[in-house]
Amino acid sequence: MAPQLEPYFKQVDGLSSSFIDRLRKAVAIPSVSAQDENRKDVFKMAEFLSSELEALGAEVQQRPLGKQPGKEHLDLPPVVIARYGNDKNKRTILVYGHYDVQPALKEDGWATEPFELSVDEKGRMYGRGSTDDKGPVLGWLNVIEAHKKAGVELPVNLLCCFEGMEEYGSEGLEEFIQTESKGFFKDADAVCISDNYWLGTEKPCLTYGLRGCNYYSVRVSGPAQDLHSGVFGGSAHEPMTDLVNVLSRLVDSQGNILVPGIMDLVEPLTEEEKSLYPAISYTMENLHESLGSETGIHSTKERTLMARWRYPSLSIHGIEGAYSAPGAKTVIPASVIGKFSIRTVPNMESPDVNKLVFDYIKSEFAKLNTKNTLDVWLQHDGKWWVASPKHWNFTAASKAVKQVFGVEPDLTREGGSIPVTLNFEQATGKNVLLLPMGSSTDAAHSINEKLDKRNYIEGVKLLGAYLHYVAEEPISA
Amino acid sequence: MAPQLEPYFKQVDGLSSSFIDRLRKAVAIPSVSAQDENRKDVFKMAEFLSSELEALGAEVQQRPLGKQPGKEHLDLPPVVIARYGNDKNKRTILVYGHYDVQPALKEDGWATEPFELSVDEKGRMYGRGSTDDKGPVLGWLNVIEAHKKAGVELPVNLLCCFEGMEEYGSEGLEEFIQTESKGFFKDADAVCISDNYWLGTEKPCLTYGLRGCNYYSVRVSGPAQDLHSGVFGGSAHEPMTDLVNVLSRLVDSQGNILVPGIMDLVEPLTEEEKSLYPAISYTMENLHESLGSETGIHSTKERTLMARWRYPSLSIHGIEGAYSAPGAKTVIPASVIGKFSIRTVPNMESPDVNKLVFDYIKSEFAKLNTKNTLDVWLQHDGKWWVASPKHWNFTAASKAVKQVFGVEPDLTREGGSIPVTLNFEQATGKNVLLLPMGSSTDAAHSINEKLDKRNYIEGVKLLGAYLHYVAEEPISA
Repeated sequence: MAPQLEPYFKQVDGLSSSFIDRLRKAVAIPSVSAQDENRKDVFKMAEFLSSELEALGAEVQQRPLGKQPGKEHLDLPPVVIARYGNDKNKRTILVYGHYDVQPALKEDGWATEPFELSVDEKGRMYGRGSTDDKGPVLGWLNVIEAHKKAGVELPVNLLCCFEGMEEYGSEGLEEFIQTESKGFFKDADAVCISDNYWLGTEKPCLTYGLRGCNYYSVRVSGPAQDLHSGVFGGSAHEPMTDLVNVLSRLVDSQGNILVPGIMDLVEPLTEEEKSLYPAISYTMENLHESLGSETGIHSTKERTLMARWRYPSLSIHGIEGAYSAPGAKTVIPASVIGKFSIRTVPNMESPDVNKLVFDYIKSEFAKLNTKNTLDVWLQHDGKWWVASPKHWNFTAASKAVKQVFGVEPDLTREGGSIPVTLNFEQATGKNVLLLPMGSSTDAAHSINEKLDKRNYIEGVKLLGAYLHYVAEEPISA
Repeated sequence: MAPQLEPYFKQVDGLSSSFIDRLRKAVAIPSVSAQDENRKDVFKMAEFLSSELEALGAEVQQRPLGKQPGKEHLDLPPVVIARYGNDKNKRTILVYGHYDVQPALKEDGWATEPFELSVDEKGRMYGRGSTDDKGPVLGWLNVIEAHKKAGVELPVNLLCCFEGMEEYGSEGLEEFIQTESKGFFKDADAVCISDNYWLGTEKPCLTYGLRGCNYYSVRVSGPAQDLHSGVFGGSAHEPMTDLVNVLSRLVDSQGNILVPGIMDLVEPLTEEEKSLYPAISYTMENLHESLGSETGIHSTKERTLMARWRYPSLSIHGIEGAYSAPGAKTVIPASVIGKFSIRTVPNMESPDVNKLVFDYIKSEFAKLNTKNTLDVWLQHDGKWWVASPKHWNFTAASKAVKQVFGVEPDLTREGGSIPVTLNFEQATGKNVLLLPMGSSTDAAHSINEKLDKRNYIEGVKLLGAYLHYVAEEPISA
């Protein structure tokens, strides 16, 4: 054990009630970024964070991001940035989190008041933002406090970047990070983000990859206006018929993408990468539990996780312009837009994927011999991200997990995207680590969001221990 | 010419201004059956019709239909029934129309106030309900008035059935017709409905057939709740993938129904029926004009009209449960319901069609080898209707058209359904004729609904002449 950790851990245990009180105060501020009427609460939360950080001795700034685009009557919440320590002989770690939360109403089905932290007998702390992302954000504050009170010097310089618009698109943040990577964040040696979740409930993980996403729209148009299917059915080419036909050619029921050439872009699986999977703490029962059904495609956990993390997938999300309400309507929609997306992985470059998708769809549509017209376009894309799990940033975190939890962490990737990860990597050029605090059952974005007391308190130990190992790690590739 | 027609026609011309005034008064009553707040206006319209009919000497009853199912705070509007003439030596004609209208707001894009009749320099009379169906309903009142004022005896007994809920599902009407076919309507020798439109703008038509409609839902379900496509894409069978695949197998881009056996149920085209088509006043330009595009499937008018009237068609209307809004959402919907319908024609019996559809969909779904589940069910059905255009009811109408417009009417069918037609046929066992007053450009249900003055005034002559020829026609098969 790093020598200073024992007094630090003891201090964390001693302060656990006050750490929970800190979380209670934060959860009580309904900092919902998506709702205009809560914007004042998002600012209040920024103020709370700033004053807590200042009280701990950090240098804090609230950096405005201007008016909210499209909602110019609203100011964007500030980015709360802070520095704790400025010792040239220490490594500097930049940590990111967000202090805004998803909307929540008791009527949505919460068992408790969403903006009151409610701790049950099993130590589950329910409340909006408990796990996403107020618990982890306060984790860093708790780390500083416990060090101070234990009389243990923080072994690194800590830079904080806490935003207030994450749940509403991180408006303005990318440019801010870009700018401050040469300014306030310029000393950062590595980045640590705690805003995701363990794969299960027992074992921590370090996350080193995320899939990207290319989101497409494909529109088929025919008549100038919707038609009555009784009057015109059989005499006109129907856009829905053609669209459904095109969509049916994109992916099969086993999840195989049917666009020729897509799979050729995928980085082949190496033996080394393959060897990471068997040890991962995950079972097919875990999958079935999260699906609420046994409709998984693959029969092994390895193949299932690879399908989610390191292979692309194609999902059809829906159709705009057709009849989507309950009941019956005998309409021939005049123009319909299919929405689908491809989750991308190394080495799928967006322009290559787009070309394959566009060419394939157009050639399949041509085969239909319809007089309707088709357009297909990219609605948005976000690149995949993969970091080296052998970097000292990861090995330090791995040792911290072993120290605090007594196990080797799972080395995981995720199927979804966390755009800020790539933003930090690209802006700073430094290694980025995703070090989650919460578990897979925390129900972020859902009703009854919670953070287990164990995850919170041991998580504070983990974050602190990580900083100690970071200070000790030799330089890696 | 039937001897009494000349003075009758002169009288109609002389009364044309007062007939337009009658329509103006009717249009001014916003008898929108779909909107609770207008229910009082629907009642007011019933009152207006009743008092006009009474003033003309008809025996009138307003027959209540009870509370509106599902909206028990509302009384259903009454059916206004009337008898004019009770001479056992005359034929008795039962006429149907409706006095309620579709909703209309100036803001929807109307060029004039929808509930003020506005007559332009070309004699187009704009106003909600002008053509659908207040003009035709008042047509019958005008027929009586012009006969009285011309001193010409009405050559038949007239029974009226005017309802106030047609635009909202004709709630309660079917049972009413069933009951009164042995009561108030028991003397009816034939039925005439004026609630559809000419095929074009120049030539009247007699309509002798309607397609039926079997409306289906097909649901594919997988996970217990919607999934994030980033997290789960590639690892779970996606209901949208399977549904789109199933829907793509129902119909091809040329409108061919792919359900095996369906076409075997269709009554073969006879030479006699085929011979009716070339004379019909319709061109491919008419089709393109109504589509607002040149996306028709067939190259000739005959094949186009057959596709609409005497062959089945299958339309995919939309998908419930998937993402249908503008923008992007990376959801894997947990359960999605495709909606499609088949327009049916002789001799497709609903149970036979259902069996073919269900068996085919289930067998195609089985081929997908997915763990998701599928249900398919009939949401509702309505039978097709075809009358004999050789019945005296039709030959009388045909002679009337020739008398008033100087042309042979088009003998048409329609692709859509008008359920009341079948209700009258089944309840009375008598021949039913659809004798439209308005033209194809009247924009019923749309903004700027209108009825041309010519269609209205000549239409009153047509309805009157029809009654005279009805009185003269020998009994037909």
